Amino acid sequence: MLKRNVLFIMCDQLRFDYLSCAGHPYLETPNIDALAARGVRFTRAYVQSPVCGPSRMSYYTGRYMRSHGSNWNGFPLRVGEPTLGDHLRKLGVRTALVGKTHMTSDDEGMQRLGIDPSSTIGVLASECGFEPYDRDDGLHPAGRRHPKQPYNAYLRSKGYEGNNPWETWANSGEAPDGSLQNGWLLAHADKKARAPDEDTETPWTTREAMRFIEEAEAEQRPWCLHLSYIKPHWPYIAPAPYHEMFGREQVVPAIRDERERRNDAHPVYKAFMNLRVSRNFSRDDVRERVIPAYMGLIKQIDDQLGKLFAFLKEKELDKTTLIVFTSDHGDYLGDHWLGEKDLFHEVSVKVPMIVVDPSPAADATRGTTCDALVEAIDLAPTFIEYFGGVSPRHVVEGRSLMPWLCGEAPSHWRTHVFSEYDYSMQDVRRYLGLSVDKCRLFMVFDGRWKYIHAPGFRPMLYDLQSDPRELLDLGADPAHEETLIKMRAALLDWALADHNRITMPDARIEGYSSAAQLKNGILIGYWDEAELEEARRRL
Amino acid sequence: MLKRNVLFIMCDQLRFDYLSCAGHPYLETPNIDALAARGVRFTRAYVQSPVCGPSRMSYYTGRYMRSHGSNWNGFPLRVGEPTLGDHLRKLGVRTALVGKTHMTSDDEGMQRLGIDPSSTIGVLASECGFEPYDRDDGLHPAGRRHPKQPYNAYLRSKGYEGNNPWETWANSGEAPDGSLQNGWLLAHADKKARAPDEDTETPWTTREAMRFIEEAEAEQRPWCLHLSYIKPHWPYIAPAPYHEMFGREQVVPAIRDERERRNDAHPVYKAFMNLRVSRNFSRDDVRERVIPAYMGLIKQIDDQLGKLFAFLKEKELDKTTLIVFTSDHGDYLGDHWLGEKDLFHEVSVKVPMIVVDPSPAADATRGTTCDALVEAIDLAPTFIEYFGGVSPRHVVEGRSLMPWLCGEAPSHWRTHVFSEYDYSMQDVRRYLGLSVDKCRLFMVFDGRWKYIHAPGFRPMLYDLQSDPRELLDLGADPAHEETLIKMRAALLDWALADHNRITMPDARIEGYSSAAQLKNGILIGYWDEAELEEARRRL
Repeated sequence: MLKRNVLFIMCDQLRFDYLSCAGHPYLETPNIDALAARGVRFTRAYVQSPVCGPSRMSYYTGRYMRSHGSNWNGFPLRVGEPTLGDHLRKLGVRTALVGKTHMTSDDEGMQRLGIDPSSTIGVLASECGFEPYDRDDGLHPAGRRHPKQPYNAYLRSKGYEGNNPWETWANSGEAPDGSLQNGWLLAHADKKARAPDEDTETPWTTREAMRFIEEAEAEQRPWCLHLSYIKPHWPYIAPAPYHEMFGREQVVPAIRDERERRNDAHPVYKAFMNLRVSRNFSRDDVRERVIPAYMGLIKQIDDQLGKLFAFLKEKELDKTTLIVFTSDHGDYLGDHWLGEKDLFHEVSVKVPMIVVDPSPAADATRGTTCDALVEAIDLAPTFIEYFGGVSPRHVVEGRSLMPWLCGEAPSHWRTHVFSEYDYSMQDVRRYLGLSVDKCRLFMVFDGRWKYIHAPGFRPMLYDLQSDPRELLDLGADPAHEETLIKMRAALLDWALADHNRITMPDARIEGYSSAAQLKNGILIGYWDEAELEEARRRL
Repeated sequence: MLKRNVLFIMCDQLRFDYLSCAGHPYLETPNIDALAARGVRFTRAYVQSPVCGPSRMSYYTGRYMRSHGSNWNGFPLRVGEPTLGDHLRKLGVRTALVGKTHMTSDDEGMQRLGIDPSSTIGVLASECGFEPYDRDDGLHPAGRRHPKQPYNAYLRSKGYEGNNPWETWANSGEAPDGSLQNGWLLAHADKKARAPDEDTETPWTTREAMRFIEEAEAEQRPWCLHLSYIKPHWPYIAPAPYHEMFGREQVVPAIRDERERRNDAHPVYKAFMNLRVSRNFSRDDVRERVIPAYMGLIKQIDDQLGKLFAFLKEKELDKTTLIVFTSDHGDYLGDHWLGEKDLFHEVSVKVPMIVVDPSPAADATRGTTCDALVEAIDLAPTFIEYFGGVSPRHVVEGRSLMPWLCGEAPSHWRTHVFSEYDYSMQDVRRYLGLSVDKCRLFMVFDGRWKYIHAPGFRPMLYDLQSDPRELLDLGADPAHEETLIKMRAALLDWALADHNRITMPDARIEGYSSAAQLKNGILIGYWDEAELEEARRRL
């Protein structure tokens, strides 16, 4: 078989609609658009939780948040949870990481099982199955030492002084008087990062990816590289020339309506609107300051991807490499009176998803879009299938996108997508006076109705057919009782599915019967020798 | 602190109502009754799945079946799933097994994590957390070699010849002509086992328990012994004198009604009624042949427990040892036109549960019954608390019974009990033409209404207030729509709870806030220096 590879590109906090191929009126992303022209752009791809950690753990395991249990940033992924890397290594694929995963290791679990965190198995268990070629989560807050973060080491090697050049050079500007302008602060989003373009994170990460590919190609083993950019995630600050490429006149208006802030707004939504980040992003001046930087950071990614795609083409790797471009969630940027992500409006829970399969079988779909209901967990089984494996249904909960790429409409495709959110780590929990186990939201979307189940509260409901901008919450409207019941039934079916039966493949169950039991000498319910003999004769 | 111990006694397939303290009219169980007189008998204790394997994995982890994922007999418990033994070992308790667990080890998972199955950690992971002092699952079918089963080794050491003396001596009778009468066959339930009482499994297991206790006491460490009898589980055949202690006149009438077999019976129930074991147990002559043997096997357990309790008293261990007597599920014995277990009628899913806490705090409740809704998973946290630990709520899903033992009614006790069943391994799946992932049943019981959710089918519903014998399925009756909706809502709440967030304790979440984030240098959503300074001042 031809040596095949997967290049799995993820941005962080990139909205689905901030690409020119997705219709952004001012932001040109020609390299990403060219990728879309070579493959399929999925227009209804949803993450399994609209926040980094759990969303990524779903991408990296092919399993829902309720299955992998890593509910929020910093919640360790339990040791033994099967990962994409585990599945691909079985197929002989080198599965490596350059960039961010947001993984926290389950040190207690490893200790209980006697696994040395520095052993090969221990490192993989600590890095959600990836070989950490370059792990860099792209957040180096002041006051912490990050001895393992390679990007800071790179900056130091280039002579950028200070304890934390990530913050003081790549993510700060400099005032005329020489004082630092901290890029964590939204007011400084229009500043020029002190480090030049080439030394900021996106180009560095891209170069590291090329370095990995060079190295992996020398080995002639198939590889899967997760190239995981921290940007356009905050701190929102870009280097020259990206810091001034866009202006306030290119900031699209916020998707919002005064009705959303009414007194009878859903209590959980209301509490999120009350967070500092939401209050600030509800200000037009904040949007006008931040969004140009956000656009600049995306433009920088597009430029870097242009270099990377040229590099692949030069090596003829474009002919054997399946390429995915996606994000871990979106960014409200003031839409719906919110900042950050965390809730289930399209701008937060829907992500860009472009898949290029270089195989001739996929020629018919190049440059098309597909509006099937897709989940982030579908990538893991897609990769497994691309490398010739069979995705284990009892472990991996997503479904391979291969049929769509080949222009086939699979039978029995899912009719609903699901996403979950645990808000116990948000101040929202305190505002609402809830215990940690009560802070849960569940989204069910069937392509028209978006139902949000909020235990302890009434549900939310949006009709994306009549209200595509999601401005009108119908969850309290008795006229929609029937829809609410139907959506709740779909949620129950999903919740009751197995999420943990990971040790027993379907095929082994299918092969079992009372006849097999009889052969094994387990004689349940036979009356006498005659009955037993008759059953044995029938075997 | 006083050295404390736990003796966790389990029978296999013992119905809740086959004890004199629970009202059986003919079967006297004075030693078990004496235990009940020293403690609390819980009259509404339910197992989390009415079949050995998953029920036991719930007992041994304190977690629902959907959490531990071991859905049926022989489905390996995933490596890393935290067990009772893990929790107790942290408290310095030697946690050992004599008898049956029905555990299957997750060999693939151990291999993936590099765990040697013969290492100390590997053995514990293979034995669901117990030190296997004597692991013997009590089923040694012909044709298999059981080199590790210590009971067969014992029989051989006593001179019982043959490849499988478990079957040919302890579980077979002998005809006058010397030919074997196979105890697997129900027709031979009235025969006398060839081995004498003292060499059958129940006395052997009891002696092994005493041997463990002697040894553990010499060490002076606290211990938790799981004494796990295979009986009165089939093969239904007893040694003298138990084989003839009871006759057909002491067989209580079957709980059943012709209406249960009507054409509109629930399709899943109907398919179970159609199994061979159900058809045979629906015959009165089968019940009259088998039930006296079943009663004899229980009587034998009661006699052996008499010896064990005398042994404990002699060593004054009765003063420091918490004793539990329970079962992994019941036995239909022809009730409801069924054999075996597997469905959710009281005789199957409800178990005997007697708990004796020797502490003075429990004096007030001695000899009482408690009708609180209790689940099998409540034992693990009870034991943890008895040994002075705190049960980790994010891992162990049961609740300690200690308050009930001390005569306190805990606030917010559960209002529903839950049980699950995966029938994919039953021929029922083939009768109904289902795929393996569709074969699920879920029971929700609130003390009055027993609701059984059957994805793909209508639900079942019983009103135990007006119909305590559960003869009338109201699941298709539109008059009960409101009850069905209420029960389904309770099921949804339960299904949506976290079952996998096992790496993050509640306390760590409670200690988190945006203030803690600020201290860590993560500055989300601050506009400028002034806003940041103000937030810092407020810290």
